[in-house]
Amino acid sequence: MATEPTQESLLPGTKILEGDLGVPVREIPLSNGETFRVYDTSGPQGHAPEVGIPKKRAAWVQARIDRGDTNFSQMHYAKKGIITEEMRFIAQREDVLPSFVRDEVARGRAVICANIRHTELEPMIIGRNFKVKVNANIGNSAVTSSIAEEVEKLTWATTWGADTVMDLSTGNDIHETREHILRNSPVPIGTVPIYQALERVDGKAEDLTFEIFMQVLREQAEQGVDYFTIHAGVLLHHIPLTAKRITGIVSRGGSIMAKWCMHHHQENFLYTRFEEICALMQEYDITFSLGDGLRPGCIADANDEAQFGELRALGELTKIAWKHDVQVMIEGPGHVPMHKIKENIDLQLEVCHEAPFYTLGPLTTDIAPGYDHITSAIGAAMIGWWGTAMLCYVTPKEHLGLPNKQDVKDGLIAYKIAAHAADLAKGHPGAQKRDDALSKARFEFRWNDQFDLSLDPITARLFHDETLPAAGAKVAHFCSMCGPKFCSMKITQDVRKYAAEQELAAEEALQAGMAAKAREFAEAGGELYTPAK
Amino acid sequence: MATEPTQESLLPGTKILEGDLGVPVREIPLSNGETFRVYDTSGPQGHAPEVGIPKKRAAWVQARIDRGDTNFSQMHYAKKGIITEEMRFIAQREDVLPSFVRDEVARGRAVICANIRHTELEPMIIGRNFKVKVNANIGNSAVTSSIAEEVEKLTWATTWGADTVMDLSTGNDIHETREHILRNSPVPIGTVPIYQALERVDGKAEDLTFEIFMQVLREQAEQGVDYFTIHAGVLLHHIPLTAKRITGIVSRGGSIMAKWCMHHHQENFLYTRFEEICALMQEYDITFSLGDGLRPGCIADANDEAQFGELRALGELTKIAWKHDVQVMIEGPGHVPMHKIKENIDLQLEVCHEAPFYTLGPLTTDIAPGYDHITSAIGAAMIGWWGTAMLCYVTPKEHLGLPNKQDVKDGLIAYKIAAHAADLAKGHPGAQKRDDALSKARFEFRWNDQFDLSLDPITARLFHDETLPAAGAKVAHFCSMCGPKFCSMKITQDVRKYAAEQELAAEEALQAGMAAKAREFAEAGGELYTPAK
Repeated sequence: MATEPTQESLLPGTKILEGDLGVPVREIPLSNGETFRVYDTSGPQGHAPEVGIPKKRAAWVQARIDRGDTNFSQMHYAKKGIITEEMRFIAQREDVLPSFVRDEVARGRAVICANIRHTELEPMIIGRNFKVKVNANIGNSAVTSSIAEEVEKLTWATTWGADTVMDLSTGNDIHETREHILRNSPVPIGTVPIYQALERVDGKAEDLTFEIFMQVLREQAEQGVDYFTIHAGVLLHHIPLTAKRITGIVSRGGSIMAKWCMHHHQENFLYTRFEEICALMQEYDITFSLGDGLRPGCIADANDEAQFGELRALGELTKIAWKHDVQVMIEGPGHVPMHKIKENIDLQLEVCHEAPFYTLGPLTTDIAPGYDHITSAIGAAMIGWWGTAMLCYVTPKEHLGLPNKQDVKDGLIAYKIAAHAADLAKGHPGAQKRDDALSKARFEFRWNDQFDLSLDPITARLFHDETLPAAGAKVAHFCSMCGPKFCSMKITQDVRKYAAEQELAAEEALQAGMAAKAREFAEAGGELYTPAK
Repeated sequence: MATEPTQESLLPGTKILEGDLGVPVREIPLSNGETFRVYDTSGPQGHAPEVGIPKKRAAWVQARIDRGDTNFSQMHYAKKGIITEEMRFIAQREDVLPSFVRDEVARGRAVICANIRHTELEPMIIGRNFKVKVNANIGNSAVTSSIAEEVEKLTWATTWGADTVMDLSTGNDIHETREHILRNSPVPIGTVPIYQALERVDGKAEDLTFEIFMQVLREQAEQGVDYFTIHAGVLLHHIPLTAKRITGIVSRGGSIMAKWCMHHHQENFLYTRFEEICALMQEYDITFSLGDGLRPGCIADANDEAQFGELRALGELTKIAWKHDVQVMIEGPGHVPMHKIKENIDLQLEVCHEAPFYTLGPLTTDIAPGYDHITSAIGAAMIGWWGTAMLCYVTPKEHLGLPNKQDVKDGLIAYKIAAHAADLAKGHPGAQKRDDALSKARFEFRWNDQFDLSLDPITARLFHDETLPAAGAKVAHFCSMCGPKFCSMKITQDVRKYAAEQELAAEEALQAGMAAKAREFAEAGGELYTPAK
């Protein structure tokens, strides 16, 4: 069992690499002598960005190449009954049986995004019978940012718990930026290849061709991209359905394909030639993330015919991909008021045959630009509870500008909250352990443990120390919220202590008192004193 | 119709005081010549804190005193069929009929918190058939803060949309702080009188008496406090039910009363002498906010017997208060995982006879101290959707320290989001207008309108300007998120323009193209091309 320190001064605890596969787990020491283990996405630490992180999967993949495999999809192996190293790795990470991982992947209800060229990957799984996952989008645009910044954002994102990262760069140096990101990423990387394809035709959507698109796809496949967002469900006959929307088409990829379809009066080539794309996906084991090009961009446009028409098309494509043993997830909205969220996931499970749902939010109102990590965390938590497998984060900068590091962190924390709240609500085994450990620390005034067990120990500690910076306050039986006299937890402890001192079990003590009072009041005929239940 | 500018450089628009009662509304001018009106809680502006704001209700109340009324409760008038000025004011604010306001108050399904001594109040209503409201807690503790700071926090809170404010001060100068807050508050002020009563007995819970409590109550009533949190449902036999909890009793008031009950082996005097309290409440028209002294303080403790036992006791007390025409709301949790939230509101509606529910969050996980405005906004939005009438905000400092101004604002914005998301989900009439107006501005690249229509225009503008500060960017058809080439909204507009140029309705254009393609593919026998629905 190897250990390595986690990135200095950021997250508490020690990274432990367990078993023959070196499955990472972060172990947090507590002041009462216990330890607490958490799922960890931060990856190997301390490697120079230009060199990249160790190629953990290289030998596993090489063995498959050596024995002459041609379809490298995890689904392909799963259907043949094979348990891969990736599946074993994941089983240990999620605390389930390897055969369960295999069966869920074979069934298409979970995906392992793991391009055979992305050997740096620490395998993970996306499916509703596993922990809910979170994706962080990074990427420059034509307006701003550099390669170094993007790699730093990747590391930053995985430190704060991103389970996958999408590189949505659209500016210059797309290829080089992506190469650096992949070589440094312990988590699956997704892209939207149509962005790069559009660069190839100088931004003219109508000049796009299937051949150019496939060229881009192959280049990115070679680099090791783990999943591709492909807007193959935007069909010609859906487009008029968006005409009366307030915000029309808000997916970049969706609008590009709509423009192409309109211009040529032809069906979307991603749809008509979908099986050719499947062939390439097999070759590298790339997962489809079937894009929701017609997702609603505002509350008024939610759950309309355009959106659900596309969803049904994605379900149809799912079946085709599965026929080729290609893994699929389905992207979802967007902007949806709370009462319309459940309809989305229920319809998705039905028409997409339980392929994992991967949703952006949804945002539950349009009126809070600057706070859309919150408007959307509300929707994300709910849709996660109801069965969404991965939540694509939204940062505070959504609708306003490109996120910086602080925004990436804020978006991630909001989404780790949503994902964990969803795990709790689903009754996911073990999810509540962390809440219980933290709450116990809180009740026992183990302040440092409370901080270390939290999603963001740095901020928790900082906030506490704003008013009570002294070291002694870390063991004090109160904080500045209520002060010493009004601390309910302290009073509760006093009450429990008092009961103990009386050498009575609390219950007996109270029932004795209660009985006396009940008699007294019954004699007075007080109607008030009927037991309350 | 009088107008006054809203507080300089903070919120956009003009405050309009409508009708004979001067009902405030904020009118936001848009760049397309339209205007948009929003509910406004900021109150009269520009008055010196030591003088206070105008006494809008003074004449209304005086007329009632002059005609010899003794029960001043809005419920009392409502039950007699009278429509008060407060009810008319509220009807205009909420865009409903005055008789509807009266009937909801008579029924106990809504409350108007309006102490006759708080004549500065701009009346508002709390009930599930009205807009969901938000409460902000302010107040010093023994550890920190001053009177001037607290009044500034009040003004700050109402500026950012607080519908009511609770003064939870527990340090010195409680009385004077509260006096300043009341004389400057356009919104109802709530308190937890047991805090001040405890000060009177030097923090010794066991020394509390009903007489001391009533003394405090009367002093606060005289000052004009609009609602009192009273923990009358913490009963002796509930206390042992908390013994196995992870965090015991986390309500300050609840723990104080539990300590008193334990020490004396007697029933809670707030329960046994509840009707005497009702007499005082009538006299000033103070609303009960029946405290949930046994609310769960962590996920593990949610929905247990202690909590629900107390809730049933509160339902019993509601009936008694109503017998005296005293208004009642019921406080609710706390920490509750998503799947256990609905049970709370459903049980509350049932056992408390639809008296308005007023909940703290609930927080949907314990693992994110520093971000509990988010963990709780998730639960608040959901419970608001399902029928909670008012949401008590939680700030990022919850569990860690006393909130500063930034925390108050962050808590409020998160809760205005939750309340509005709830209004949308309930289908509250008119709620979606603001979303639609903002989204239309967004689609039409009216950036300034988008900012001005948002909950926090300052932050929205700031975030946008971080990357595109030039004035020209405020009319640009893109932002730094995607850059000009990838703006889906711009492309959508191009698509619509293209269809128009072709002198074809978009639908016809597409159906023409579609038909041709459909034929072609049908001939090729392509199964893929079946219409997707």
